[in-house]
Amino acid sequence: MILSEQYKTMKDFISSLQDEITGTLGEIDGKSFSEDSWERPGGGGGRTRVIENGSIFEKGGVNISDVHGELPPEAAAQLNVKPGKFGATGISIVIHPHSPKIPTIHMNVRYFETESGKAWFGGGIDLTPYFPYEEDFVFFHKVMSDACESVITGSYPAYKTQCDEYFTIKHRNEMRGIGGIFFDYLDGKNPDHFALVKSTGNSFLKAYLPIVKKRKAALFTDDEKNFQLHRRGRYVEFNLVYDRGTVFGLKTGGRIESILMSLPPVVHYNYDPTFENGSQFDIMNQYYQPKDWLNYE
Amino acid sequence: MILSEQYKTMKDFISSLQDEITGTLGEIDGKSFSEDSWERPGGGGGRTRVIENGSIFEKGGVNISDVHGELPPEAAAQLNVKPGKFGATGISIVIHPHSPKIPTIHMNVRYFETESGKAWFGGGIDLTPYFPYEEDFVFFHKVMSDACESVITGSYPAYKTQCDEYFTIKHRNEMRGIGGIFFDYLDGKNPDHFALVKSTGNSFLKAYLPIVKKRKAALFTDDEKNFQLHRRGRYVEFNLVYDRGTVFGLKTGGRIESILMSLPPVVHYNYDPTFENGSQFDIMNQYYQPKDWLNYE
Repeated sequence: MILSEQYKTMKDFISSLQDEITGTLGEIDGKSFSEDSWERPGGGGGRTRVIENGSIFEKGGVNISDVHGELPPEAAAQLNVKPGKFGATGISIVIHPHSPKIPTIHMNVRYFETESGKAWFGGGIDLTPYFPYEEDFVFFHKVMSDACESVITGSYPAYKTQCDEYFTIKHRNEMRGIGGIFFDYLDGKNPDHFALVKSTGNSFLKAYLPIVKKRKAALFTDDEKNFQLHRRGRYVEFNLVYDRGTVFGLKTGGRIESILMSLPPVVHYNYDPTFENGSQFDIMNQYYQPKDWLNYE
Repeated sequence: MILSEQYKTMKDFISSLQDEITGTLGEIDGKSFSEDSWERPGGGGGRTRVIENGSIFEKGGVNISDVHGELPPEAAAQLNVKPGKFGATGISIVIHPHSPKIPTIHMNVRYFETESGKAWFGGGIDLTPYFPYEEDFVFFHKVMSDACESVITGSYPAYKTQCDEYFTIKHRNEMRGIGGIFFDYLDGKNPDHFALVKSTGNSFLKAYLPIVKKRKAALFTDDEKNFQLHRRGRYVEFNLVYDRGTVFGLKTGGRIESILMSLPPVVHYNYDPTFENGSQFDIMNQYYQPKDWLNYE
């Protein structure tokens, strides 16, 4: 199988994006990302960049991969495509700051194609804050809206709703954060979809950097840190029980360390924690439900 | 549906066992368990006892439950029984000590019956140590062997093997601990199986208390504590990705807090941690594979 021109363009895009994002985040932190290149036995490989114990970022990973070869049968069945050769390339980012005043952020964009002629794009960005800075949530969703609307007019509401639904911890009927945008199985032959993926990738720093700069010097209390450590437990709960990329990746022989780099560095699981009615934690908990952030007052 | 005499006897057994275990562990710790009784909307309920931030036990839960009523359709399908009324009663224990020199322990025994006449027992005990005290592992498995062999001659090896297999993190081909015994779907009409369940329940303190007493005063280093925090991440990884009781319980409306009381209080997830060849951590990692502990030299 010869991977398409679009596949190569996507690979170049995410490789540059990884450089730009790790360079920028490393600069503001003062600590550089370390790099770990790896090969996949069946074909392809990836380049994982990680920061741990930086001055701002407690743990963060920016991983690009290009895996290709014979599609594993269980993957073909799950994806409902014919067995045969495939290629999948994408970038995944998860950043966990020390401070509970700076949100955790996640981004992923990916492209998949098969020799039988299937091709699609997927991806999204979502934010997981621990402190009720509503203005940050509105700002974040405005950047997300711009990323979508500048490419496909009227597309933000649907991708926003898909994100709310996807990042829900179903047994709790509660989101892991405040959402963002999420799309999947977008026709790979429609150039608007590639443009959307690029726009999403390029919106990562536009959305996150202003929040990091604005909140990095904010002081926080032990209670605020403990609330973050508690909510990080919900992050793990979502990722290991529901996240398709995580569970599917682990069960089909993906590179474990690159998949699980998403997990927060330190997590607390207390028995049935409760938060005083009307406290900032109680208020924050109410934000983990779908809200119309663009029109929030 | 009228629950059977055996069901009631089992309920009484686990209720007494909960008293004995929480009383004994609370006494050695110096801090008592707190109690949280809950009801299940569809019928039945439970009594969860928890210790947090004790002097020895960082977090521990001992939960008994008796849930009955109409079997949820997805549960009937999963269990391959006819829809209708059911009863399920059992005890679950997970204890996470502060010290990495004292292992984490888990026990569960349970009984299930349906109005269509199905009945079975399940359960087991397994140990998750963080320090290579081989003599403790041998001792633990001897108590497990006695618990099985005193009731059903020749039964330990099969239940030991099932435990090794069940508590494996499949994508890593690595156990979460050093195993113990595990059995499931044992015919509820065979009195030997009830006797095995009682023997298993009664072996909990016999197996764990001598280890706690022997190791509670042992000093430990930061590196040893960090190794425990790292391995607790594997504990979460197993429970949320593979443990049937956890995943099935969460997805079918079980009481979330009682299910997730098994999660360790503080967990570290580092990117791709490595341990020096021949170090105690490297040695400990090699023990997370099936071993014939009864004949260990």
